Amino acid sequence: MRIVILGGAGMLGRKLVERLAAIGSLGGRPITGVVLHDVVEPALISAPFPVSAATGDLADPGVAEAAIAGRPELIFHLAAIVSGEAEADFDKGYRVNLHGTLKLFEAIRHAGITPRLVFSSSIGVFRGPFPETITDDFHTVPQTSYGTQKAIDELLLTDYSRRGFFDGVGIRLPTICVRPGKPNKAATGFFSNIIREPLAGHAAVLPVGDEVGMWHASPRAAVGFLIHAASLASGLIGPRRNITMPGVSCTVGDQIAALRAIAGDAVVARIRREPDPTIQRIVSGAAWKFTPKRALDLGFTADRDFAGIIEAHIADELGGRIMA
Amino acid sequence: MRIVILGGAGMLGRKLVERLAAIGSLGGRPITGVVLHDVVEPALISAPFPVSAATGDLADPGVAEAAIAGRPELIFHLAAIVSGEAEADFDKGYRVNLHGTLKLFEAIRHAGITPRLVFSSSIGVFRGPFPETITDDFHTVPQTSYGTQKAIDELLLTDYSRRGFFDGVGIRLPTICVRPGKPNKAATGFFSNIIREPLAGHAAVLPVGDEVGMWHASPRAAVGFLIHAASLASGLIGPRRNITMPGVSCTVGDQIAALRAIAGDAVVARIRREPDPTIQRIVSGAAWKFTPKRALDLGFTADRDFAGIIEAHIADELGGRIMA
Repeated sequence: MRIVILGGAGMLGRKLVERLAAIGSLGGRPITGVVLHDVVEPALISAPFPVSAATGDLADPGVAEAAIAGRPELIFHLAAIVSGEAEADFDKGYRVNLHGTLKLFEAIRHAGITPRLVFSSSIGVFRGPFPETITDDFHTVPQTSYGTQKAIDELLLTDYSRRGFFDGVGIRLPTICVRPGKPNKAATGFFSNIIREPLAGHAAVLPVGDEVGMWHASPRAAVGFLIHAASLASGLIGPRRNITMPGVSCTVGDQIAALRAIAGDAVVARIRREPDPTIQRIVSGAAWKFTPKRALDLGFTADRDFAGIIEAHIADELGGRIMA
Repeated sequence: MRIVILGGAGMLGRKLVERLAAIGSLGGRPITGVVLHDVVEPALISAPFPVSAATGDLADPGVAEAAIAGRPELIFHLAAIVSGEAEADFDKGYRVNLHGTLKLFEAIRHAGITPRLVFSSSIGVFRGPFPETITDDFHTVPQTSYGTQKAIDELLLTDYSRRGFFDGVGIRLPTICVRPGKPNKAATGFFSNIIREPLAGHAAVLPVGDEVGMWHASPRAAVGFLIHAASLASGLIGPRRNITMPGVSCTVGDQIAALRAIAGDAVVARIRREPDPTIQRIVSGAAWKFTPKRALDLGFTADRDFAGIIEAHIADELGGRIMA
């Protein structure tokens, strides 16, 4: 099985290829090669199959065609401008997140291949007011340009799949927490910062109140969603190709309590409260209580609870050690 | 108030400008001119204000900019490839219904005007399985390319409005019935044909069973929606800019019963049953039972019942006379 990962230099793309290298096959079919594609040069890894890198902006002429020239049977489309940047730069967000995706879909259509395409959408397609819990048939009326672009991509994915141009699955990812590495431009970055930084011995800023809730998935769980989506039988998915992923629903207060239970008061004391009304406004209207029935019926599995998310971070990123 | 009607040569565009000519003002402001724009030359009418015509394809370079060069304060965007044609010609549907709309929105943004923009969306954005009744927060997962394009346009309209580039309102029109004139390429054409043709003394083909239901609005009611949407206070609409219009929910059997009550058995006998599995499949999954609470709260009003729809047709199109 030939695989292309678009957005292969990103956090999820890197973790995904590492997981693919570890498992070596998907749905019983051996992986014969992976192309990592991104706007910046992706780092290569050693794997039991060839891993190569390619660069380019999907919105530029010919780039999407070149990215799929190897006629992949599986494409992970993770490439996107993140929420904060898409909000700050209207043209760039639409250029990459809408037109880049559309160019990719058109390239696949005209190449005459019909790969499974796994698309990373986002719970950012939803915006309140919400019912008590968000079911699978709740409308997608985003109030960010990022959410708008993802919701449009979902619609295109459904139509292109219905037409038989490819076999698409969109998975609406929860907020990824604990996100490793440096903060990116997402307004939701602090959900990770307040766990990652204190565990590493650093201070972290908490810009919102303890009552703010979020729908979380660890990077480990998110990679699991991608892998599971890659080999789901198309007939099981049905005509509604975009699926809200399961997650852990908790408040900032719940996050901090879990951190305290695992790492102690001294670590929690590294969180500094600096309220930011803009971030509070953005995240306090976010979706954080779901009933992701379709995903659960299809076998997608979430983290156990927020403590499980912290434990996954300590195991996967910190080699089991915390700075107590 | 300067007004541009895109799709001004279509049935709704023509009826809309006739209504505007009759009322002469909107929301207390006198109409100072109307531009009718379409791919074919729109027919001019006499009105208490200047009416001019312009032609061009919104997807062609410069056409959208030219269409709004008069800096309109109100734009009706009714231009679209209809459902059957958008399904038959994938590229043409996306070119006009997605890229044409996007070019229009960009032209408005860059012109530095912030008009009210009334967009004719469609209940084609919905596809079953449905709950018992479709509420305002039901998801839009179309299963036609036309519905997909309308749903995407709705998302763009919401985001461009949120950004302050214009003041958009999308109204999801029911099936227009009784549609006057010749059949167009919509798969739903028979809903009108079985009323219009018999009333005019002609035979009509009914390709589906009596149990098939639809959500109907007369052309008169649809023009009323457009006019009402044009002067609704933006603050009342709120951030969710697309609204399902009220309609008349009835089956083909109900339609025929209403026709019989108004026009008699001889007229009904002109309906010939010729089942068409393709059309049956397309329309039997259509949305036809709604609870359009938001629209009703905002003052949009539907036809009284299907008999009222037939009576409006006889009055507006047949000069009160039927071929009994």
